[in-house]
This record gives sequence, structure tokens and C-alpha cells, in this order.
Amino acid sequence: MEDYYLGWLEQVERALSMWGCCRVDMEPRLIVITGMGGSGCVGDYVYALASTRKYFKYPIFIVKSHELPSFINEKDLVFVISYSGNTLETRHAYLEALRRKCKLVVITSNGFLERDAKQKNLPLITVTKGIAPRTALPEMLLAVLNVLDTSGLTIVSRDEVEDLTQFLKEHMAYAYNEAMEVAQFIYGNKGNLVIATHTPLEVLAIRGKNEFNENSKIPVKIDVAPEWAHNDIVGWEKPFTDKWTVLEIVDPSNSIGLKLISFMDEIYAEKRYPVKKILLKGKNLLQKLLYGSLLLGLASVKLARLRGIDPLETKNISKYKSRVHEILGQP
Amino acid sequence: MEDYYLGWLEQVERALSMWGCCRVDMEPRLIVITGMGGSGCVGDYVYALASTRKYFKYPIFIVKSHELPSFINEKDLVFVISYSGNTLETRHAYLEALRRKCKLVVITSNGFLERDAKQKNLPLITVTKGIAPRTALPEMLLAVLNVLDTSGLTIVSRDEVEDLTQFLKEHMAYAYNEAMEVAQFIYGNKGNLVIATHTPLEVLAIRGKNEFNENSKIPVKIDVAPEWAHNDIVGWEKPFTDKWTVLEIVDPSNSIGLKLISFMDEIYAEKRYPVKKILLKGKNLLQKLLYGSLLLGLASVKLARLRGIDPLETKNISKYKSRVHEILGQP
Repeated sequence: MEDYYLGWLEQVERALSMWGCCRVDMEPRLIVITGMGGSGCVGDYVYALASTRKYFKYPIFIVKSHELPSFINEKDLVFVISYSGNTLETRHAYLEALRRKCKLVVITSNGFLERDAKQKNLPLITVTKGIAPRTALPEMLLAVLNVLDTSGLTIVSRDEVEDLTQFLKEHMAYAYNEAMEVAQFIYGNKGNLVIATHTPLEVLAIRGKNEFNENSKIPVKIDVAPEWAHNDIVGWEKPFTDKWTVLEIVDPSNSIGLKLISFMDEIYAEKRYPVKKILLKGKNLLQKLLYGSLLLGLASVKLARLRGIDPLETKNISKYKSRVHEILGQP
Repeated sequence: MEDYYLGWLEQVERALSMWGCCRVDMEPRLIVITGMGGSGCVGDYVYALASTRKYFKYPIFIVKSHELPSFINEKDLVFVISYSGNTLETRHAYLEALRRKCKLVVITSNGFLERDAKQKNLPLITVTKGIAPRTALPEMLLAVLNVLDTSGLTIVSRDEVEDLTQFLKEHMAYAYNEAMEVAQFIYGNKGNLVIATHTPLEVLAIRGKNEFNENSKIPVKIDVAPEWAHNDIVGWEKPFTDKWTVLEIVDPSNSIGLKLISFMDEIYAEKRYPVKKILLKGKNLLQKLLYGSLLLGLASVKLARLRGIDPLETKNISKYKSRVHEILGQP
């Protein structure tokens, strides 16, 4: 499992080698990204990158459901992402997007979506097969950014992805070591995990939650400031139990973010919850998000090892998959 | 505090009396709703109603931050909502929307936003002054739906709001009684609260979290299926602590929702967590959302009473407000 994460540099290099492979010709009203779990999370990354990209003018819309909102239509560009190619919710959303005549791009490694996209001659990027879906994040994310850049809807340019390879080479070992410390910190305290961060890093709180869910088998609560300061903050006045551990994620070049996290520190300190802070490395948001994601992935795997748990196996998801056709119905 | 919630019928009647008061002339690319906490939550309601409304074609975009995403521009209709009219994040977003020449509508009871909107002659709906902001939900929500309907961008019609008054009259007492049971259930078990629901009811999980945060002073974790089945579900395999209490919210006329919740039941039952189910009353989604919100509001107030806590006072938010100018800077 660790190797999948340590293979992120190769994923970025592979994505670079595919740059320019696939384009769409349209001026979309919305860019919609639909998928579930580790595949759906790609939408959160694209949203964070696009919403902070000066002059980028296309709204990013995330759908993590079997249903497309009614207002998505033929004016929209829809990225359908499922690592396995068989995620039932995503198949439902894909078929609905086809019915509505949306412009589609499919990103998958296999399965129904690969076959169907080929048969229908839809734009398709096939990522490396046979790894844990959640660890295929860089390739799936860069596939979206590739298509957008190639189509003149640039959020991240090829040059920035070139820089990312160099950045990962230089910071892989540091991320690994910091991840080991984070895992030891959580394991040592054994409180329910809270991941705290600031706008526009919501994506790392969501991704971190998903990683500690799937790899370490623990529930995670998310606190994102400043919205946190209007509701969750009051929840920390008098919890029923005080067994919580806080992992804070900060962008050290975001001065408002630093102040928000410093204020969050005070609130957690009043409750004497153990707090550990991750200061993201990186020159730009793409690098910071990948650094944080790598660290969270490795930390969640290490925590599983410390607990004597297999990080790869996700029994409850298997149980869901054995029942999902009966729950959602055939697409 | 209870009286503010029991005054929801009067809020709906007041909103009805304002119907048609305010319109905008535009065909928006996006309908953006920006605000924080109890005011920002209005966006989640509008999103749920719009995304399930057949043939509704305008994307709803929620911004709960001091920063507007880069892609929001003069083609968009932006609702700026702050009950107090002074929320600093919302003032930042409002001024940025003005700079970008977005079409603006202001919904507030007072403060800077009321003064500034009047001075600039912007479309403005002023809601009842002097109640707890989070309890002004119906008036703020219906103000948005009013402007949209009056402008030919109907999500909910005046007739449906008329029906809502009748519905509330008939169900207020039932909601109150069910809320008392919910509060007793949570108080009796004293576990960390999980609010579990299914798409498209995310909004009730978010609203419920906010209400139990602010009124009862407890943290809340949210589980929304089917996305939950791709990550959080694994977190319930081996939590560090097993002191959790689950409140499920179900739309009994949503057959997929019922099956999803029934599957969630099995997962929580394996852990022997106490579970209580709320079956939403109502003939349509608007009624169901208001019923659920009323119940959650009253239950969270009752839970505060059972714990000997003042539901109205939110000390940590006051602390934040005393510091927010230094954190975010002057708008």
C-alpha cells in the first residue's frame, strides 16, 4: 500500500506523457465533475484550484451522487470519473448525462465506463490499472487538468505539472517522515480524529477524512474555518466526551489562514485536546495539495499498521457493493 | 428561544405578505447564494429544492467564505444573506461581488448591509429584527424563493408557500412532541452525535449539525449516503471510541433513501450504537425540509435545557467576533 503512494511521482510523469492527448471543443456553461469516494474527490481538488485561479471563468460543479441536479444540461461539460469504471452511482449519473446530451469526458482504468466510452467514441483517458483507487489521485486529477488545458480552459498548465515532478522528487522523503510523526501522534492519543483547516483547503480535510476512514478504519470530523466559527466552534464548548485529537492543516503563505488556525488553536487548547499542525510545503496550490494528500495518505496507512489493521481491505465497502444494485436499482 | 421556533408560522405568513415585492430582470448564468452560519445555510436549502425541481435550469452555487471563487462574475445573480447585516465574511464577499458587477440582492434584518443596499438602491428584503439569526430561517429562505419566483426563475411558487402555512398549522404540535423525544434520546445516551441521512437531504444534516452546535453546545459528525458508503462507512469498522449516538433523517417517500438508511442501520447496529429515526412529514420537499428543520431546532433547544445550558448564548462565536476584524482584515 505504501508503494502506491510512493509511486505518485511516476503517476505524475505518466500524466505528463499523456498531456495533449484529448480535447473538447466547447465553451461550457459549467464544468461538472461527477464521481464517488476517491474518484469523486478529484472534483474537490479541481474546485479548489479553479476557484483561486485568477481570471478563470468557468464554474466548477461537483456531484457525488447517483442523481444529477436538474439544472445540468447540454451546455455543460461533464467529467465522469470512476477508477473501477463500475461504480453504480457514477454509471447512473453518466447515463443521465448522456440522455441530457451533456458533453462528456470519461476518466477510468477499466470496466463498464471504459468499454462504453470506447464504443460511443467519447473522449476517454485511461489511467494505470490495478492499484487501490484512492491512491490513483494524481493520475485522475491530472487527467482532468490535462483535458482542460488542452481544450483552452486552463486551470493548471503543463509547465506547472513539470514543476510538480521536481517538487515531488525533492519532498517525498520529507512527506514520508512527517507522515510517520502524524501517525504516531494520532496513535499515541487515541482520540476521535478532527481534521481542521481553513478555506480554500476544504479539499484536504475531505481527502484526509476519506483516507483515515478507508486506510485506518476510524471516523473523522471536519472543521473548516471561517464557516466553522459560526457553528462548530460552539460545539466545542461542552461535548459529551472529551476524547478528541486534532490535526490541523495550514497553508503557511496564507496570512488569513494562519490567523484562522491560530484562533482555532485557542479553542482546542481550552479543551486541552492534543493538536498537531501540518504546514504545507510547496510553491503553489497544486504542489501544496499534492504534498498534503501524500502526507495524509501515508499517515493513514502507517496508523493502520500501528493498529495492526490491513489498510487496503475495506470490508464495509465490499458489503455495500454486494447490495448496491438492490439499493439503487439497475442503471 | 422555543418561541422563536414556534413563531415559524408567522414568519411564513409574513414572507407571503411580501411576495412579489422585489424582482430582478436578468437571465443569470449562475444563482449564487453567499452567507455564513445560519444565514449561509439558506443556500443549502435553495440548492436542495432547485436540484430536484424538474426543468429548473439555473445552477445554484453556495459560497460560505469571505472569498468569492474567481469564476463568479457579472453574468451571475448573487444573493447576499446576513441576518445581522454585519457578518464580516459576508461584507467581504458583498463588496467583491459589487466590484465584479454581479447582479445583487440583499437579505438582512439590519446593520451595514441594510444601510448600504438602501444607499445603493439595490434590491433588498428586510426580515424581522431582533430574533436569534438561526431561527430566522423560514423568512430568509422564503425571501430568496420570493425574489426568484417574482423574477420568473421559479423554484417554489406562491401557492406552495400558501400550502406550507396550512401544513405548519397542522404539524407544529407533532414536530414539537417528536423533538422532545429526540432530545431525550440524545440526552439519555450521551454519545457523540452523528446525523445520518441520504441525498438530497444533505441540507438537514448540515442544518442539524449547526443547530446542535449552537443550541446544545455539542460537536456533530455528518454521514450522508450514498457518498458515505465510499469512505465514512469504513471508519465505523474500528473507531478509537465507541461512544456515539445516531440520529437518522429519512424521506419516507424516497424509495432509494429508505433503502440507503436501512443499510446504514445495519452498519450502526453492528457497533450497537443507539439509533433514532426521524421520518419527515410533508407532501413535498419544501414541507419536509421545514418540518425537519423545525424538529431539529426544537430538539437542540430542549437538549440544552436538559443539560442546564442556555441555548441562546454562543460564547465562542462572541469570542470570534471580537477578533474577526484582526483575522480577516477590514473589508
